Amino acid sequence: MEILVVGSVALDTVTTPFGEAREVLGGSATYFASSASFFAPVSVVAVVGEDFPMEALEFLRRREVDLTGLERRPGRTFRWRGEYGFALNEAKTLETQLNVFAEFHPRLPERYREREVVFLANIDPDLQREVLTQVLSPRLVAADTMNFWIQGKPEALRQTLKQVQILIINDAEARMLAQEPNLVRAAKTILGWGPRSLVIKRGEYGALSFSDGGWFAAPALPLENVYDPTGAGDAFAGGFLGFLASTRNFDEANLRRGVIMGSVMASFAVEAFSLHRLQHLTYPEIEARYRQFKQLAHFASAQGKAAVESAFVTGAGEGNRTLTVSLGTRYRSWSVGR
Amino acid sequence: MEILVVGSVALDTVTTPFGEAREVLGGSATYFASSASFFAPVSVVAVVGEDFPMEALEFLRRREVDLTGLERRPGRTFRWRGEYGFALNEAKTLETQLNVFAEFHPRLPERYREREVVFLANIDPDLQREVLTQVLSPRLVAADTMNFWIQGKPEALRQTLKQVQILIINDAEARMLAQEPNLVRAAKTILGWGPRSLVIKRGEYGALSFSDGGWFAAPALPLENVYDPTGAGDAFAGGFLGFLASTRNFDEANLRRGVIMGSVMASFAVEAFSLHRLQHLTYPEIEARYRQFKQLAHFASAQGKAAVESAFVTGAGEGNRTLTVSLGTRYRSWSVGR
Repeated sequence: MEILVVGSVALDTVTTPFGEAREVLGGSATYFASSASFFAPVSVVAVVGEDFPMEALEFLRRREVDLTGLERRPGRTFRWRGEYGFALNEAKTLETQLNVFAEFHPRLPERYREREVVFLANIDPDLQREVLTQVLSPRLVAADTMNFWIQGKPEALRQTLKQVQILIINDAEARMLAQEPNLVRAAKTILGWGPRSLVIKRGEYGALSFSDGGWFAAPALPLENVYDPTGAGDAFAGGFLGFLASTRNFDEANLRRGVIMGSVMASFAVEAFSLHRLQHLTYPEIEARYRQFKQLAHFASAQGKAAVESAFVTGAGEGNRTLTVSLGTRYRSWSVGR
Repeated sequence: MEILVVGSVALDTVTTPFGEAREVLGGSATYFASSASFFAPVSVVAVVGEDFPMEALEFLRRREVDLTGLERRPGRTFRWRGEYGFALNEAKTLETQLNVFAEFHPRLPERYREREVVFLANIDPDLQREVLTQVLSPRLVAADTMNFWIQGKPEALRQTLKQVQILIINDAEARMLAQEPNLVRAAKTILGWGPRSLVIKRGEYGALSFSDGGWFAAPALPLENVYDPTGAGDAFAGGFLGFLASTRNFDEANLRRGVIMGSVMASFAVEAFSLHRLQHLTYPEIEARYRQFKQLAHFASAQGKAAVESAFVTGAGEGNRTLTVSLGTRYRSWSVGR
């Protein structure tokens, strides 16, 4: 299946404790496409200004990314400036210049209308729906959003959510969206609004997915060298949806594989500034890291001597019931309440 | 194997967004013993004052917990008062009254000296070593500590670490102890000081273990009802060491099972104030929750259409090399850098 992404193509200036990168390639659609293009063909809808260095996207063309829908408009390219402290989990935005993005209304090239998998990156929820109306019959629609839209356009966002099958946001956003501090209850509330799956990104703590098929906790790979978390969430979405699109299977088991593939791609994204790591990545590296995640998360059933071989309760009434459990090598008994 | 624990038996006053519990049973040794006693016999070394309601520990006696080493001294029992906000991950300590704990020097009853598994709960590192000198030939020594000792008695703590095989602390403590914000590097530093395994508790984000056998990421079960996180870390240590002691196997695979069993016990501990949930827990409930963790964390290999069937690079030199990967149904090629 082919993927359509709408989002930003930007020039970022990022400061971390490990250095600074000025006016480097960034943007949600860019990170997403870099990541997803390892798995499936990607078509990009976005806008840049006259000052944008188009050759910076050459590596995407080589990966069969369709940039026909990338408009070039009079004016300056969208710019974001942010910094990270030693707690790399959260960015501090120093400046956002919308520039050509302010007047952006996505217009899909004719052939884009047939795309079956759609990713609505973090943009105005009204624009997200403008894109959806132009897609003929999408099989899978996933979306991201952020505090700015959750607080600023709650009604428009709720309208968009009705048309979204998978919402991919971080834990603070999930709590804010549902107005509920408990993540399980927040997830249940959000799933009541339309999406059939909610994927919650937790940065260095991994990801959680909630759906009818169950709850899934994916670890993050502990990394010795994290240089720049910018774009990790979009690289995650790219790996996740790219994997689902290439396998054409949206069941729970494959959704879980997708979440891991998303985590794999995010783990690479943060290892260098801008898109450097995603640009120089190879499929064998991706495969090897997926296996690393498998090794990281694996544990066996609680077999062995501590496994319960039998358990029975004797007696009746509060205070005089006894539970006896066989732990293989010996029995243990104790009184139990109700 | 039988377990020896040294730690506190306390009276806690805890406020959470869900209510308050005044002067209820608490303390690291109490939580640990409640949890570990589901798996193995436990002997407690601790001190209480004349005001302590001994009947509150009756449920431990029924689980074969040996309280011979629990001294009763003139004076008041150790008291802790704390509160939690909606972010339940971290307690705010409002008051600590050491009382009889201030002059505590653990003296082991003769038969305790033969215990093979030792847990040094979070107390003065000098006292932790005082206990160890009285144990004849421990097979496994695990310890906890906290910021107070890391900052206040760094040298004493380093001495203790030389005699500890498994250190069980939280992520903030690991970073503080190693003076290193990156968790992987912090773990490597700490493992250089003695312990052969480091288990890092991350509250609602699960646990990480680092050892020669590899890295392991255990999820936490997303819980809809978390009432009181007090004692979760000690309940974790109890499930972890209880499982290891009962299975008599300290290899990597069993260590991972132990980390999950610790997570299982911690997930119960937080579901009610004080020790209420651990008091009324049954082994079948523990088994069922272990299976829930297995279900939560399970994912398959990246098999299927996206699996790499072959990958080869053609061409030589920067800029004109091509990587071709078979994704089962089709080949994709792109240029690659180095």
